[in-house]
Amino acid sequence: MAAQGVFITFEGIDGSGKSTQARRLADHLRAIGRDVVLTREPGGSPGAEEIRRLVLEGDPDRWSAETEILLFTAARRDHLEKTIAPALAAGKAVICDRFADSTRLYQGITRGDLRGVVDQLHALMIGREPDLTFIIDMDPALGLARAKGRNGAEERFEDFGEALQQKMRAGFLDLAREFADRCVVVDGNRGIDAVAADVARLADGRLG
Amino acid sequence: MAAQGVFITFEGIDGSGKSTQARRLADHLRAIGRDVVLTREPGGSPGAEEIRRLVLEGDPDRWSAETEILLFTAARRDHLEKTIAPALAAGKAVICDRFADSTRLYQGITRGDLRGVVDQLHALMIGREPDLTFIIDMDPALGLARAKGRNGAEERFEDFGEALQQKMRAGFLDLAREFADRCVVVDGNRGIDAVAADVARLADGRLG
Repeated sequence: MAAQGVFITFEGIDGSGKSTQARRLADHLRAIGRDVVLTREPGGSPGAEEIRRLVLEGDPDRWSAETEILLFTAARRDHLEKTIAPALAAGKAVICDRFADSTRLYQGITRGDLRGVVDQLHALMIGREPDLTFIIDMDPALGLARAKGRNGAEERFEDFGEALQQKMRAGFLDLAREFADRCVVVDGNRGIDAVAADVARLADGRLG
Repeated sequence: MAAQGVFITFEGIDGSGKSTQARRLADHLRAIGRDVVLTREPGGSPGAEEIRRLVLEGDPDRWSAETEILLFTAARRDHLEKTIAPALAAGKAVICDRFADSTRLYQGITRGDLRGVVDQLHALMIGREPDLTFIIDMDPALGLARAKGRNGAEERFEDFGEALQQKMRAGFLDLAREFADRCVVVDGNRGIDAVAADVARLADGRLG
């Protein structure tokens, strides 16, 4: 029997290690014989990467929260059509670093009280939710220290600040409760191998 | 008493002369002492022009109809926020060459049966309708002949064809009936001066 497509996303604050864990899960699933597509948002298809550049380059205030949500939704629609949906239809495991939950949090809450708009746009233009979402939970002070070790991350964190990261952490935990059927919170305040082992075990359990 | 802002749009098939008529109305309103902002879609603000390039450059099939609608809506939102709304708030007359009616027709009907999606996105993210819309009606065969006289227009028409232009013409007339409170159909099968005189007279009547 051909494998069934499965859509797995990783969410969490900057510095939480979610990108690393997405790669580790891809390695694990390949090791047990799955075809895996590892992708990320914003971006993930040639068109979506162009939209990503349009949003993220230049003056950060040049787009309003509403325009930014529309651009991210356009990028997600392209990513879904060109990368995610074809891979799922071919029975692959799609692992995506950030998806709609990040928009619910960053554009929906942080950039204005626009969660309702985000949800309506998602229902109208995207529809698809992941089958499984790992929320890598981490103490923002630790995430901040880790992120500062990465090139270019420092400036971004100075813009945002730890208070905002605390708000984000709480927001991700709220989303985990709201979408409890697909979300699993994993303690990211540990070594990479320990976290990866948890993620692999939980994924294996869900995929059967 | 300060002038009240008024939002006037021009719609019609390619070659109908709507861009010329938009400029002529701007000249007329300036001559009678109005502050006028003449703009166009897609585009009309620096951000919207960047999104316009993203949509219109490159392979015409690289975006699905749904993604294209999202990108045009993002451009319109930026255009509304940065150009149209501030000018209206300052009491100016805003004249725009194409607006949401073009999306209703081109993305809503021609590129798939997506009129419902277009309308929902408009209600959610744009909201604003023009106060007055001139639909410049023209026999597509005449529009085609005129457009072929313009640089670069020939290739585009070969892509679209006269049958599609006939469908567009009928679509614009349908929109005029649907939005009868703000739409005026003007016969564009005449000389530019005759059409411009009609448009000016109708605009003066509406603006009081």
